[in-house]
Amino acid sequence: MNKIFLGLLIFAPVAIIAEFAHVSPSWVFFLAAIAIIPLAKYIGEATEELSVYTGPALGGVLNATFGNATELIIGIFAIQKGLVEVVKASITGSIIGNLLLVLGMAMFFGGWKKKTQTFNKTASMASAATLLLAVIALVVPAIFLQTAPESGSRIIEELSIAVAILMIIVYCAHLWFTLYTHKHLYAAEVGKEEANWSKAKSITILLIATLAVAWVSEILVGSIEPLIAKLGWTELFIGVVVVAIIGNAAEHTSAVTMAIKNKMDLALQVSIGSATQIVMFVAPVLVLVSLFFHDRMNLVFNTFELIAIVLSVLIANLVVEDGESNWLEGLQLMMAYAIMAVAFFFHP
Amino acid sequence: MNKIFLGLLIFAPVAIIAEFAHVSPSWVFFLAAIAIIPLAKYIGEATEELSVYTGPALGGVLNATFGNATELIIGIFAIQKGLVEVVKASITGSIIGNLLLVLGMAMFFGGWKKKTQTFNKTASMASAATLLLAVIALVVPAIFLQTAPESGSRIIEELSIAVAILMIIVYCAHLWFTLYTHKHLYAAEVGKEEANWSKAKSITILLIATLAVAWVSEILVGSIEPLIAKLGWTELFIGVVVVAIIGNAAEHTSAVTMAIKNKMDLALQVSIGSATQIVMFVAPVLVLVSLFFHDRMNLVFNTFELIAIVLSVLIANLVVEDGESNWLEGLQLMMAYAIMAVAFFFHP
Amino acid sequence: MNKIFLGLLIFAPVAIIAEFAHVSPSWVFFLAAIAIIPLAKYIGEATEELSVYTGPALGGVLNATFGNATELIIGIFAIQKGLVEVVKASITGSIIGNLLLVLGMAMFFGGWKKKTQTFNKTASMASAATLLLAVIALVVPAIFLQTAPESGSRIIEELSIAVAILMIIVYCAHLWFTLYTHKHLYAAEVGKEEANWSKAKSITILLIATLAVAWVSEILVGSIEPLIAKLGWTELFIGVVVVAIIGNAAEHTSAVTMAIKNKMDLALQVSIGSATQIVMFVAPVLVLVSLFFHDRMNLVFNTFELIAIVLSVLIANLVVEDGESNWLEGLQLMMAYAIMAVAFFFHP
Repeated sequence: MNKIFLGLLIFAPVAIIAEFAHVSPSWVFFLAAIAIIPLAKYIGEATEELSVYTGPALGGVLNATFGNATELIIGIFAIQKGLVEVVKASITGSIIGNLLLVLGMAMFFGGWKKKTQTFNKTASMASAATLLLAVIALVVPAIFLQTAPESGSRIIEELSIAVAILMIIVYCAHLWFTLYTHKHLYAAEVGKEEANWSKAKSITILLIATLAVAWVSEILVGSIEPLIAKLGWTELFIGVVVVAIIGNAAEHTSAVTMAIKNKMDLALQVSIGSATQIVMFVAPVLVLVSLFFHDRMNLVFNTFELIAIVLSVLIANLVVEDGESNWLEGLQLMMAYAIMAVAFFFHP
Repeated sequence: MNKIFLGLLIFAPVAIIAEFAHVSPSWVFFLAAIAIIPLAKYIGEATEELSVYTGPALGGVLNATFGNATELIIGIFAIQKGLVEVVKASITGSIIGNLLLVLGMAMFFGGWKKKTQTFNKTASMASAATLLLAVIALVVPAIFLQTAPESGSRIIEELSIAVAILMIIVYCAHLWFTLYTHKHLYAAEVGKEEANWSKAKSITILLIATLAVAWVSEILVGSIEPLIAKLGWTELFIGVVVVAIIGNAAEHTSAVTMAIKNKMDLALQVSIGSATQIVMFVAPVLVLVSLFFHDRMNLVFNTFELIAIVLSVLIANLVVEDGESNWLEGLQLMMAYAIMAVAFFFHP
Repeated sequence: MNKIFLGLLIFAPVAIIAEFAHVSPSWVFFLAAIAIIPLAKYIGEATEELSVYTGPALGGVLNATFGNATELIIGIFAIQKGLVEVVKASITGSIIGNLLLVLGMAMFFGGWKKKTQTFNKTASMASAATLLLAVIALVVPAIFLQTAPESGSRIIEELSIAVAILMIIVYCAHLWFTLYTHKHLYAAEVGKEEANWSKAKSITILLIATLAVAWVSEILVGSIEPLIAKLGWTELFIGVVVVAIIGNAAEHTSAVTMAIKNKMDLALQVSIGSATQIVMFVAPVLVLVSLFFHDRMNLVFNTFELIAIVLSVLIANLVVEDGESNWLEGLQLMMAYAIMAVAFFFHP
């Protein structure tokens, strides 16, 4: 597995060269997309190694922060280019992708040969409530705009900022709950006890991989607009399906692997945890960061994205809340994703 | 009980004669409606007898298929007559009728003299997730049309076909789960061990009853349009309340009987299982079958029907998911049905 | 604690004098608002004392009725003044205030130094189902109007009356469940065994406090319109946030106190029970009472209020349904309230 990722690293320089050689945008997009996958994986690995030295608490914070580094970096470049709708679409895609596709595949393959797999209920209920709160945080501004369409974009912006700040507070509180007051629920997470890499090596890899992701992300984002023009796909589809799958490839692999090893608690933390981080941390941070750019990002998602998010959270919560899973539940989540992906593909 | 159904059989020839005698459409509708009830019952009984010979697995498939034979046949005749909205309304009615009225009455009468009744949680969670997936399958096309109203009916049709196929896959997977990988959860279902009828008798009754249902259904559907013109009721009300109650009369009787005998697992399988079959099997099959007719059926339900379905699924899932029921929960479901039926009656 | 409430009683005469002295409406509103808090508290206490003499069953009925006396009285005066939108807004506010702010603070402060707090699951599921039914009762008329906007106000009124009657039936059934058939689940509630006040004293205080609440409420409501004109706040914000907080101040104090004493069952009964009573009893009674006034109240809430109620019920049910709580769940509810309050403040 690790060798594959090592091999994929070659795509990073290839993508950079292709960009300078003015290769067609589809190729640049494709190469950059693949190049991001191993880089994201190495950011993850370096953070994990580092957490052995820092201890679990600080390690958890590092993990939560760098785990979203890729999405954050792609998001910032895209906002800078004015692709605010692509950013929102990729946030939608990350949420539904993690809750339906990643979690679904984990439950399906993990549960294939078993009757049921179990996981900690209290921990999953805490995530479920956070996800529902995220739904509230996204639904309220959207309904606000729908019921008061005459309200200026300034009010929507102020509301978005206020909601973003409240979301970050909840995210920090959830982190505090996970890493401090209720860490016994998440004991399984600690995982690594001995580092394979030295402290210096970990930090170096973390820095290099993050910089490389930044570079490749800029190339990726730069190729989106010509790609849209060429393929005729919509920003919505590229954001929701394509960018989201790339950004979460690493989570995908590890969640399924863990589920097959019957470590469902870890699989849930990766998939649901990832969705939670995107919506409660990456999205509000991007709203605040966008204040420094020309194009502001607000929290008003379009109705179709919003309904997709609401439905994903409802079905994921339903499947998770009894603390058990089986292959059928996994398949149900995957099919929910398929229905949505088809609809996003057809959506004009 | 069985004698009543035997007696009701007389209504089948009476309805057919009334039709040929050009009696007023209200009478034809009424006679045909009653005639269907015992015929549906005999289809059910013959399938059950047959399953003793085929073994539980194939018996389960037979049961699931012929259990919806009535609805499917009525649906096909109605689509042929161009009454696509009545068909959709009767699907809505079957779902909310089974989830609220049938399940509600079962829990109410079953729980009247008892503190609580219990049932298998894992099995009911699997149904709950399937129902929520059904909601997704119906909400996505509707929201698609609302957010992209300019998209042609061709795109909606293609989306409906894609979603219908995915729904049938999930339905088959659920059947596989029920009859094969997790059949231990449904052990209670097997029920009959000794057949009362010979194999030949079972098959004969099954065929005759199915043909009779087909004939009477055609008469019933033919009388709907004149009936609407005469009574001033809407297609929506006839479909949601009247046709749905007729089509589910047999389920109704057996679910309440089982609940009173404290066999809640069976009562749930009949009521929730019936709703699941209608939405995950009958509805998509009708979409696909309608491709051979002049009037196509898509999966876009009107907003009012859709909200009724969503709310029914949410409250049914809430009541079911703790594995216990009592009379109050039954009453709550019945009242939810009453609120909706009143609204459908007033709805223009 | 009790001394504070005793001291606050002075605000009742002060508010009445201020009204007669034609002090500015903001002051009158403020004084009347504070005056209601201790009066509501004394109505509660007198009912509790009285229930020692009447026995728990009749006591429960008294409690449930007089517990909402304040809201009912304010509501009737406001309808009489034609402030129907303020009444609806204050119903919305009571529901989201009790489910998010009161319950959230109880869980937060109650769970601060503990890992988890537990409460009876069957009882909380019964409330959850009642709340979801309330959502159905409010969503159906609203969607009715949206999908049939041409239907006259007469049909909406008839639908509202029908739904209101069904809601009152469910409320009475829930009371019957609580006080009679399943009273063992609520044993903790009985509480008081010995009365501190004589029967006569209890009745006298109950009557005086109720009359005083009526008087002060009329003053409060009378000052709303000039206040709106002066401060520029909307009816929606005053109703949802300001009036609702005043009307529920007593519940607030007692729920948090009980939670800190680890009596979570009582804290839930106060907060969720209060929300249930408002929506299933006060709201429909006001609809029926309004038939005797010039301005009728229907059950069609505006979309923004409705979504706020739906989301509050969903997150409160999610948090409650596992029978456990912790500080994070409390914070999540409080943050959900904060998001909504901010949105209601900005909403035009």
